[in-house]
Amino acid sequence: MNRPKSIRQLIEALQKFPGVGPRSAQRMAESIVKMDYETAREMARAIVRVKKSISPCSSCFVNTEQNPCEICSDPERDHTFICVVEASEDVIAMESSKSHNGLYHVLGGNMNVVKGIGPDKIRVKELLDRVRSGGIKEVLIATNPTLDGETTASHIARQLTGMGIRVTRPARGLPRGADLDYLDGETLSHAYKLRQTVDPEPEREI
Amino acid sequence: MNRPKSIRQLIEALQKFPGVGPRSAQRMAESIVKMDYETAREMARAIVRVKKSISPCSSCFVNTEQNPCEICSDPERDHTFICVVEASEDVIAMESSKSHNGLYHVLGGNMNVVKGIGPDKIRVKELLDRVRSGGIKEVLIATNPTLDGETTASHIARQLTGMGIRVTRPARGLPRGADLDYLDGETLSHAYKLRQTVDPEPEREI
Repeated sequence: MNRPKSIRQLIEALQKFPGVGPRSAQRMAESIVKMDYETAREMARAIVRVKKSISPCSSCFVNTEQNPCEICSDPERDHTFICVVEASEDVIAMESSKSHNGLYHVLGGNMNVVKGIGPDKIRVKELLDRVRSGGIKEVLIATNPTLDGETTASHIARQLTGMGIRVTRPARGLPRGADLDYLDGETLSHAYKLRQTVDPEPEREI
Repeated sequence: MNRPKSIRQLIEALQKFPGVGPRSAQRMAESIVKMDYETAREMARAIVRVKKSISPCSSCFVNTEQNPCEICSDPERDHTFICVVEASEDVIAMESSKSHNGLYHVLGGNMNVVKGIGPDKIRVKELLDRVRSGGIKEVLIATNPTLDGETTASHIARQLTGMGIRVTRPARGLPRGADLDYLDGETLSHAYKLRQTVDPEPEREI
């Protein structure tokens, strides 16, 4: 006896998830066989629903259910300040930190010389068009502090030169809870160079 | 901005898979957003198809698309010999080893005293009924060689005592490719006790 056809097809389909090989797909398929019908049906529905309701915002390219997205269409936000990120999930992370009140621009990835991903494969042209159309005062390039992220940031920074706007990068330094012993030299070196003067706390009167 | 509702619902639904937490579910949901529509649709269809077409065989309880399953309905197989396993996937594994030509009985789990899983929670009664209905000569209890598997095997073996049939367990020993240095003492002890005499190969004439 072979594995039933519908289970084989499901194992095949589940391997489309990143990092899911034959063995994990098999375990996932088994769990679906055991699941009650309504739970499995809701999972299937949720997959199709996302495909039907999510599309990139026509201005900033964040994944959204409305177009333009709620950030781009919010008059309370600073429309002169764009924060450039790699992916939609980075927008969610930035938003929950409540630090940025401007707009975003989602590149949809990073440049990678080895993999042949040039600036034409990510939304650099769309960013330049937004800046050229006027009204932008600052672009914060918040790609990840990785090799690809830095390559992308440098390329974008060069393209924005001479456009009369401020171009910035997030500060680099020690992340909260880090153990110096385990941090890489680059992070330590950044944290050292950008060291901040500590104002001594005034002595408490007893 | 919060994560769009349909993505939140998908992340929720994907956490029904075993071992998938919020972070992996988020990565899986992102991959669905990026997937082309047809691939995602096929994934959703495959989930529902499995729920609609798979049910346990009414005799041996293996997951099957036909009832009775192709093994139980095959007259060429030995209907006097039942191999008892924990799960449907164990049937697939046994079948691909091509060692068993009898029937199967899928328990649907193991007994576990701590978790309160008694013999009534797995299909022990159904096995006894099959044996009582006659015609069975041997029952091979092939539960996994784990604590729970052994507990289950002992319980079933006791129940089958006095029914006039042969009750067997698979041999224990060294698995192929094992490194003695890394094997547990129990396995080594089994392999030692059940050691086999090697017939010396006849010397080749030159």
